[in-house]
Amino acid sequence: MSNKVAVFRKEHFNAAHRLHNPGWTDEVNNNVFGKCNNPNYHGHNYELIVKVTGEPDVRTGFVMDMKLLSDIIKDYVLDKFDHKNLNLDTEEFRQLNPTAENIAVVIYRILRAHIDTRLDLQVRLYETERNFVEYPA
Amino acid sequence: MSNKVAVFRKEHFNAAHRLHNPGWTDEVNNNVFGKCNNPNYHGHNYELIVKVTGEPDVRTGFVMDMKLLSDIIKDYVLDKFDHKNLNLDTEEFRQLNPTAENIAVVIYRILRAHIDTRLDLQVRLYETERNFVEYPA
Amino acid sequence: MSNKVAVFRKEHFNAAHRLHNPGWTDEVNNNVFGKCNNPNYHGHNYELIVKVTGEPDVRTGFVMDMKLLSDIIKDYVLDKFDHKNLNLDTEEFRQLNPTAENIAVVIYRILRAHIDTRLDLQVRLYETERNFVEYPA
Amino acid sequence: MSNKVAVFRKEHFNAAHRLHNPGWTDEVNNNVFGKCNNPNYHGHNYELIVKVTGEPDVRTGFVMDMKLLSDIIKDYVLDKFDHKNLNLDTEEFRQLNPTAENIAVVIYRILRAHIDTRLDLQVRLYETERNFVEYPA
Amino acid sequence: MSNKVAVFRKEHFNAAHRLHNPGWTDEVNNNVFGKCNNPNYHGHNYELIVKVTGEPDVRTGFVMDMKLLSDIIKDYVLDKFDHKNLNLDTEEFRQLNPTAENIAVVIYRILRAHIDTRLDLQVRLYETERNFVEYPA
Amino acid sequence: MSNKVAVFRKEHFNAAHRLHNPGWTDEVNNNVFGKCNNPNYHGHNYELIVKVTGEPDVRTGFVMDMKLLSDIIKDYVLDKFDHKNLNLDTEEFRQLNPTAENIAVVIYRILRAHIDTRLDLQVRLYETERNFVEYPA
Repeated sequence: MSNKVAVFRKEHFNAAHRLHNPGWTDEVNNNVFGKCNNPNYHGHNYELIVKVTGEPDVRTGFVMDMKLLSDIIKDYVLDKFDHKNLNLDTEEFRQLNPTAENIAVVIYRILRAHIDTRLDLQVRLYETERNFVEYPA
Repeated sequence: MSNKVAVFRKEHFNAAHRLHNPGWTDEVNNNVFGKCNNPNYHGHNYELIVKVTGEPDVRTGFVMDMKLLSDIIKDYVLDKFDHKNLNLDTEEFRQLNPTAENIAVVIYRILRAHIDTRLDLQVRLYETERNFVEYPA
Repeated sequence: MSNKVAVFRKEHFNAAHRLHNPGWTDEVNNNVFGKCNNPNYHGHNYELIVKVTGEPDVRTGFVMDMKLLSDIIKDYVLDKFDHKNLNLDTEEFRQLNPTAENIAVVIYRILRAHIDTRLDLQVRLYETERNFVEYPA
Repeated sequence: MSNKVAVFRKEHFNAAHRLHNPGWTDEVNNNVFGKCNNPNYHGHNYELIVKVTGEPDVRTGFVMDMKLLSDIIKDYVLDKFDHKNLNLDTEEFRQLNPTAENIAVVIYRILRAHIDTRLDLQVRLYETERNFVEYPA
Repeated sequence: MSNKVAVFRKEHFNAAHRLHNPGWTDEVNNNVFGKCNNPNYHGHNYELIVKVTGEPDVRTGFVMDMKLLSDIIKDYVLDKFDHKNLNLDTEEFRQLNPTAENIAVVIYRILRAHIDTRLDLQVRLYETERNFVEYPA
Repeated sequence: MSNKVAVFRKEHFNAAHRLHNPGWTDEVNNNVFGKCNNPNYHGHNYELIVKVTGEPDVRTGFVMDMKLLSDIIKDYVLDKFDHKNLNLDTEEFRQLNPTAENIAVVIYRILRAHIDTRLDLQVRLYETERNFVEYPA
């Protein structure tokens, strides 16, 4: 059996967003996205759980220093998205619809570049307590 | 001792908002409200707990039918605020800063008009898991 | 200012119940209690929070030993209601409609007899995460 | 790496049930199922989390419309089990013991018939906060 | 009716402690405090909720700036107690038994000195999810 | 598709610990472990979720009797670690640094010896709500 352990760090950010496909008419957008299509935006308290998997270092007993993981999330994800309008204030969602699925994939790609390649990475994102997503599945 | 029982109903809505005092300069607004002053808005999953206090009806054992209370909250609060931009989409916060304190007072006043005057009313509003308010105190 | 401190203990029990007024027709019962009137019962995970208020003992620093409070709740409330059908299996609700309000009052009266009269007592009962009650209010 | 994202929707229902094997004596049933064997039933607030996995649609950014998933769960699971006695009121558990394991498998099979076969499905069911199950494992 | 609103801020700290009365024999200490008397200490994740009550400022809509309240809690409570052994590392509990009741009173007194006297203050402290206290009651 | 179902049981214990590598200087220990290196210890409410996977028994509908699983966790894990100082009071962490990763591996090994080898086992351990681990990954 593998000696791998998964470690998880939970963080959160608050943001406004709107679901919208600019290639569609207002009517189609409204049919598909409902009240999430509101042109003046709505918002969420996003809860983010980052999972990192690998073998614990024998000297520290850590897969990864949780303080370092928390700092990476803060520097590269929270500082970018917290208290922002995802559609208007961020490069990532100027063209890309900020669904929970797409936000999770974007956060994964951001974090992947800053975490040791020997470690596996997965992102879970709660849009509400009742709706959440995980990437990669 | 009183025979009064308090009953609580929890509901939630998602909204965008921005904290801003139009009588102040941008600099003062930024100093006071920090990142909550972002001109493009941010948002929250608001959790709302409505407390109604009175004597249970001997025939039903209810202080108030929770289904009715839930419907009142839905019709007069959630339909007005859910998936909205509080500053732009609602009459109530066109002039009034949508802090958690002010939102709670507004929701209290809305609900008070629809609940039997023999019953006491209190509103608790969670802006995040870590910041919440109660009115009347 | 008073030196009083409130201490809270959370316990839980699972039970079946049915809301029903035997003095009413089936139609009235169904109109008033809806699906909670199902003749074959439904059930809940009840979460119970017992609040005891008084001055901490200077020798122990305790308002009341939480182990003792937990034992009292277990002996007089949980052993009576846990994994029971409230309507069929308990004396208390043979005539009394087991609404959350009535269950809270019954639990209060049971516990009041076993807790030092110099201490104040209050009961909060969650029927679901979204519906809960408190007695005395 | 796969482009698959998992999306989760949380719903809940309240039901009564009793664990019982009709092929056994009362004594054996009592030894195996303990207080869960109470002939008058007990009950739970069941929390249900449905996980659907697939590639997001590039036009919507959705693996599956969460509103549609919620409606499917409501129409085919909640309307069948909510506020019911699982042993007496449902076809599914007339012969089958309503353990959390069996309820999860039954819900999985019900939902599987209504969800696009290109999407993977998994069900998590909380009987209490401390006891829960997942199918398929 | 008063215009007062209560605002709440939730913070947390992790600490070791031991319940012990130095004026008692080991046997009495063990009888009264049980496994909480372990001479080598045990520990908790303490959740702290600070409630501040007053009238919202008409210019800000705030009873008190939550960022300021959070900073006060951090500077005067968390920096003192987080990741500490309450019995050994803190002045406050060198002579005083660190029960949840006493910790809440101590935190109240610390915070009271740093919060505007026109505002009311109350402290809730969770030692575990099942045991918590409130001061003043 | 497999008929396997996973069942989960949640338990908790409270303990003190200190992160420390005796082969390092105090300065290195402090740099690596920060305030978790406090020589007088700090503590946590550990939440433990044990996952057991297998095919439900057709006679009971159980993968494993949750009462039995709870008793095994209580007898072999909680009685050993609850209200203890992990570094001083336990054999397991006299030489091994009690990080969440190492505690999860130790608990896995303890439980593995007491659970039917036809059943798979996984352990999730929450050190705080924001930091948790899973083994095997």
